[in-house]
Amino acid sequence: MLEMTTGVHSHENAELVEQYRQAGFGGRVGWGRKPGLLVIDMAGAWTAPDNQMGSNLAGVTDAVVRLLSIFREHDLPIYFTTMAYDESRREIGRAGLAKTPHLAQMIRGTEHVVLQPELRRRPEEILIEKPRPSAFWGTNFEAQLLSDDVDTLVVTGCSTSGCVRGTVEDAFNRNMHVIVPTEAVGDRSHTAHAASLFDIDMRYADVMPMQNVIDHLQEAK
Amino acid sequence: MLEMTTGVHSHENAELVEQYRQAGFGGRVGWGRKPGLLVIDMAGAWTAPDNQMGSNLAGVTDAVVRLLSIFREHDLPIYFTTMAYDESRREIGRAGLAKTPHLAQMIRGTEHVVLQPELRRRPEEILIEKPRPSAFWGTNFEAQLLSDDVDTLVVTGCSTSGCVRGTVEDAFNRNMHVIVPTEAVGDRSHTAHAASLFDIDMRYADVMPMQNVIDHLQEAK
Amino acid sequence: MLEMTTGVHSHENAELVEQYRQAGFGGRVGWGRKPGLLVIDMAGAWTAPDNQMGSNLAGVTDAVVRLLSIFREHDLPIYFTTMAYDESRREIGRAGLAKTPHLAQMIRGTEHVVLQPELRRRPEEILIEKPRPSAFWGTNFEAQLLSDDVDTLVVTGCSTSGCVRGTVEDAFNRNMHVIVPTEAVGDRSHTAHAASLFDIDMRYADVMPMQNVIDHLQEAK
Amino acid sequence: MLEMTTGVHSHENAELVEQYRQAGFGGRVGWGRKPGLLVIDMAGAWTAPDNQMGSNLAGVTDAVVRLLSIFREHDLPIYFTTMAYDESRREIGRAGLAKTPHLAQMIRGTEHVVLQPELRRRPEEILIEKPRPSAFWGTNFEAQLLSDDVDTLVVTGCSTSGCVRGTVEDAFNRNMHVIVPTEAVGDRSHTAHAASLFDIDMRYADVMPMQNVIDHLQEAK
Repeated sequence: MLEMTTGVHSHENAELVEQYRQAGFGGRVGWGRKPGLLVIDMAGAWTAPDNQMGSNLAGVTDAVVRLLSIFREHDLPIYFTTMAYDESRREIGRAGLAKTPHLAQMIRGTEHVVLQPELRRRPEEILIEKPRPSAFWGTNFEAQLLSDDVDTLVVTGCSTSGCVRGTVEDAFNRNMHVIVPTEAVGDRSHTAHAASLFDIDMRYADVMPMQNVIDHLQEAK
Repeated sequence: MLEMTTGVHSHENAELVEQYRQAGFGGRVGWGRKPGLLVIDMAGAWTAPDNQMGSNLAGVTDAVVRLLSIFREHDLPIYFTTMAYDESRREIGRAGLAKTPHLAQMIRGTEHVVLQPELRRRPEEILIEKPRPSAFWGTNFEAQLLSDDVDTLVVTGCSTSGCVRGTVEDAFNRNMHVIVPTEAVGDRSHTAHAASLFDIDMRYADVMPMQNVIDHLQEAK
Repeated sequence: MLEMTTGVHSHENAELVEQYRQAGFGGRVGWGRKPGLLVIDMAGAWTAPDNQMGSNLAGVTDAVVRLLSIFREHDLPIYFTTMAYDESRREIGRAGLAKTPHLAQMIRGTEHVVLQPELRRRPEEILIEKPRPSAFWGTNFEAQLLSDDVDTLVVTGCSTSGCVRGTVEDAFNRNMHVIVPTEAVGDRSHTAHAASLFDIDMRYADVMPMQNVIDHLQEAK
Repeated sequence: MLEMTTGVHSHENAELVEQYRQAGFGGRVGWGRKPGLLVIDMAGAWTAPDNQMGSNLAGVTDAVVRLLSIFREHDLPIYFTTMAYDESRREIGRAGLAKTPHLAQMIRGTEHVVLQPELRRRPEEILIEKPRPSAFWGTNFEAQLLSDDVDTLVVTGCSTSGCVRGTVEDAFNRNMHVIVPTEAVGDRSHTAHAASLFDIDMRYADVMPMQNVIDHLQEAK
């Protein structure tokens, strides 16, 4: 059983980690020149525990708010995503509607797609309406990162096993340095969260306690 | 603990499946007009149990060989992938080398990247050299599927939690019908295999016993 | 000097066409299974002759309206594009702002980005906000075409040498059948229009008189 | 008639340039942090004047050789492309074969796809086999640029109205700084060359005499 602690990997799966390391996985990609912060889908539907597709992500919100404050203080780029479609729902597409029918609720302009007010998004912090789990698919995100000269992406938000993982893999594909602070990502299923965090750390990104991220940013100041 | 049976989901996680279904996940996408078969990374390094990054995938090879025979009989398109880089290893890229240093062995023309001979690939069955987990990333695969008028992708090979999952998500993103026959995908870690198969079935593709795939193809003949 | 007639290529450049044909260009891709109609950037700023970036495209509007009517009659998919950015203009990006500063006017919600009312867009006809010339770049358009099972794209709108050409090339890249009806595309510069229409016909798409498109759709009914 | 001089735009089209500038086109994107050199399709079939699809590009070869020498001297990244397909020709795809049947000659391993020996490509200078005009389409090029931390692309090779233009537009889409040295790009048709160079300079990249590129690199040393 995969379990994560704030030290990222628990004692129980130390053996599995060692097996992967010997197979040539789990290297460190480290920090690059300039980091940006991505906050994935911290919006109405996903973060309301009483919503059909929501779950309690209060701890994740707190962590994201803290990181936002530090990125703003250092004047580093910040990006938000939500999922939103046209009223006819045709933008969701055949496969989207079939596999994940809850997307039919995510209509542009409704409360389901609005960012959490606690995030206090500023006008110059870009909001990406993404049609699919990955923030890169069907969006202008990649061009935005190049425009901002960002080579390191700190990925936060929800869900770890869905949109976070998909985005992390797509950023890895492009050779970005990707960092995932454990406290700042969440999932409705603890099991799925832990399994994806393990895969992410072994294959695509450096998973680390949020304090390490904060320390790095303060030192780099 | 996530466990899969040939019925896809075990009794133990029936409750979790029900939780996801109620949250609007786990719908069925079904079959489209015309299926193609994708065989991911059934090549030297990954399928040799004594190789650093290999594992015993004999059962997966048997399943893939059976599906190949049926797709060939029905004259339906077949695609293979492997991972291969230039000798200087520059094509692997910064993040690839850092996170998964075993890729440094995957040099074009070496035994590490050669398809398993049991697959008996034919010259008109396209071999895609992919640089990243997903068969769509940095390749011509998407244009090939359109050229062949394929709208349904049967995904097989390894590893479930890496290249299979990444490819399945990218095919879902494009609104393809994606089918994953359980016996025809494998992973070095049973835990990672089961967790990713669960996520795939809930979010991106229809996971089903191989016999269902065979039955569908025989009936459609 | 490149000149086009409704017969697509004029007498003056017959020699050049012949030179390209002998070099292995200018083949016909023909019609596929199911056509969709794309209307590019027939919106405020581009179609107002008195706007900084606009020009007189009245003839193009008439042609597009006629094609819209036929596609609607046959219940075939229709897609519109416009260009639109956030008020902070950060979405335009470094290169966009530097090369084409007029984009700073294209703010979401303003009259500059609104489709021509003559087009009478219906709610189920998808409107794509594209950040770059090609309708495929940074958008969900590709997934939409697969969702609608469209393999043939009739491309109309403006400008021939910018957004039309970029889109046509990206559709060709994906192996789509691309058709360009001459009367339904326009450009502020007649010279640039003619030169791009020549390149498009030789390399990427079948350029033909609009009547041929109408005849094909009526016969296929 | 569009004509280019080494001053990029001739006297004859000064009026047209002015018209575009007033419409908000033709800004300068300038140089970024780190340039890379891309050499497009300077390979067998395209550069042999007696080949079906070839033309006399001797002047372009000389210019490219000079730029290669300077980029090597400064230890800056260099990339080459060619077009190459499998023997079954299935990789060319439906649209590729239909519109540009000469691609059927471009078989991997044949003399038609081999780089010009004068370029003296070194093993660490990546060779991209691209299936379509743009060096970005269906390739790993974008990830390679990020891996090398390149934000400025100097684009050379052939043909100006095909692969050069397609690549330049795709690099612009990603917010890269793109520079095109006039003497280092060529086309079988002088008319098509001039028309595309005009569009490129107005919309996507800074077109400039090669000496300006050399001066910039020497000063930046």
